[in-house]
Amino acid sequence: MGRLSLNIATTKKWTLREAVDGAARAGLPAVGLWRDRVAEEGLAESAKLVRDAGLRVSSLCRGGFLTAADVSGVRAALEDNRAAIVEASTLGTDALILVVGGLPEGDRDLAGARERVAERIADLAPFARDHGVRLVLEPLHPMYCADRAVISTLGQALDLAAPHPAEEVAVVVDTFHVFWDPALTDGIARAGRENRIASYQVCDFNLPIAQDALLSRGMMGDGVIDFAAITGMVDATGYSGDVEVEIFNADIWNSPGDQVIATMTTRYRDLVLPHLTR
Amino acid sequence: MGRLSLNIATTKKWTLREAVDGAARAGLPAVGLWRDRVAEEGLAESAKLVRDAGLRVSSLCRGGFLTAADVSGVRAALEDNRAAIVEASTLGTDALILVVGGLPEGDRDLAGARERVAERIADLAPFARDHGVRLVLEPLHPMYCADRAVISTLGQALDLAAPHPAEEVAVVVDTFHVFWDPALTDGIARAGRENRIASYQVCDFNLPIAQDALLSRGMMGDGVIDFAAITGMVDATGYSGDVEVEIFNADIWNSPGDQVIATMTTRYRDLVLPHLTR
Repeated sequence: MGRLSLNIATTKKWTLREAVDGAARAGLPAVGLWRDRVAEEGLAESAKLVRDAGLRVSSLCRGGFLTAADVSGVRAALEDNRAAIVEASTLGTDALILVVGGLPEGDRDLAGARERVAERIADLAPFARDHGVRLVLEPLHPMYCADRAVISTLGQALDLAAPHPAEEVAVVVDTFHVFWDPALTDGIARAGRENRIASYQVCDFNLPIAQDALLSRGMMGDGVIDFAAITGMVDATGYSGDVEVEIFNADIWNSPGDQVIATMTTRYRDLVLPHLTR
Repeated sequence: MGRLSLNIATTKKWTLREAVDGAARAGLPAVGLWRDRVAEEGLAESAKLVRDAGLRVSSLCRGGFLTAADVSGVRAALEDNRAAIVEASTLGTDALILVVGGLPEGDRDLAGARERVAERIADLAPFARDHGVRLVLEPLHPMYCADRAVISTLGQALDLAAPHPAEEVAVVVDTFHVFWDPALTDGIARAGRENRIASYQVCDFNLPIAQDALLSRGMMGDGVIDFAAITGMVDATGYSGDVEVEIFNADIWNSPGDQVIATMTTRYRDLVLPHLTR
């Protein structure tokens, strides 16, 4: 389990301190953190907690929401993302996950929103580089295109990353968001060739889609995703980083955290690990 | 309104006869039909009803469900689709819409399912050609990839169509399914260049996603789709065929059919028609 990371959104009811304890208790080597839980604990204290537990921070979730069209919205987004970059750096991770944002209220211009994302990435990349942090673009499932992320595919994320060095702008491969993509094989291979895979996140796609569509993520094996195929594609690129389990799911959130970690460890061992060669 | 077609799924509670009467009463020139309503009325009688009302049949929904992996499943799919081709021909439309199907129960191999779709299209194309009918591949929104259609983008549909002449295999552009696609401009332009746009279907994408995800389709203007942009792309290809309104939505289904047609006509006039030059 040398690469298995608990994204702490998976054990949502736990504080950061509880999640760090739980991950350490289970022998996991890493955690993926969320800013709200970090803020609750305090940034310096969070960094110390994780360090003292001997854990890596595989990523920080999340910056982004870069699509505002008005001056004050743009300024607020840049300030918030600079803060997130500093937080990532302080926590000891170089991976700041970005959910880039959807359409502004009442706006229907996807092309315009995507242009603004490109502009904000250009604004932020030097600041990120100076802090040793990569902006990690997350393509989200197209069902969230209008309200959460106007980036829907790896190819699109890589096109947006292309003007910047791989040390500054990267991508995350999240099985839930990309499994459907007919160009997935090419997208993952390209991401690898360009040295831009900053994170591999696994969870399943459950059917039927949950009433709150954000909560349709499932434990590996409970849904429709072929983890052998996708893990094999990621592994073939030479990716040797952590594998984060990030699940938003009401049933899982209502289960005891230790049990969730035990289940995810078993499923990881059975469905993901056999397809990792590193 | 010379190109506006009522897909009769929009007025779901109406029989075919009622929908034909309603469309004719509203002065529409065309209807898109569904096989279940045709079967209920009888094929010959349905054809006569539409003809006598002076309406075109813009499309027949639907064939497809081609992903079965077992011999009897393959045979059943081919039989059903041959029947659908004969029905389309009898009804006087050359457009048989295909929803190609998702993963077989318990199967997670998307690449395999897509290969079988390609094989079944090759099986069916000669029969379709002999009946003057085109197999019209419908890319469905990726949220339906696993359970309804392993074709998710226009580019993918066109790749599947490529081995066949445009008179045999074509595609439908349905705003709901494709609006999110970052490669949409290219996909529509390519579909036009290859003479494969058999149908343009319009409806909106409502948020939040409905509890039954299939019913998240909305009346144009009620959701997040930019009809000016997409209609402009379709128009720029030279497409001069019917524009079908196909909406699955519980509230709309519970409204009187004449009122639904009146609303869709107004929305079409305001949001779609200004961007059509033909």
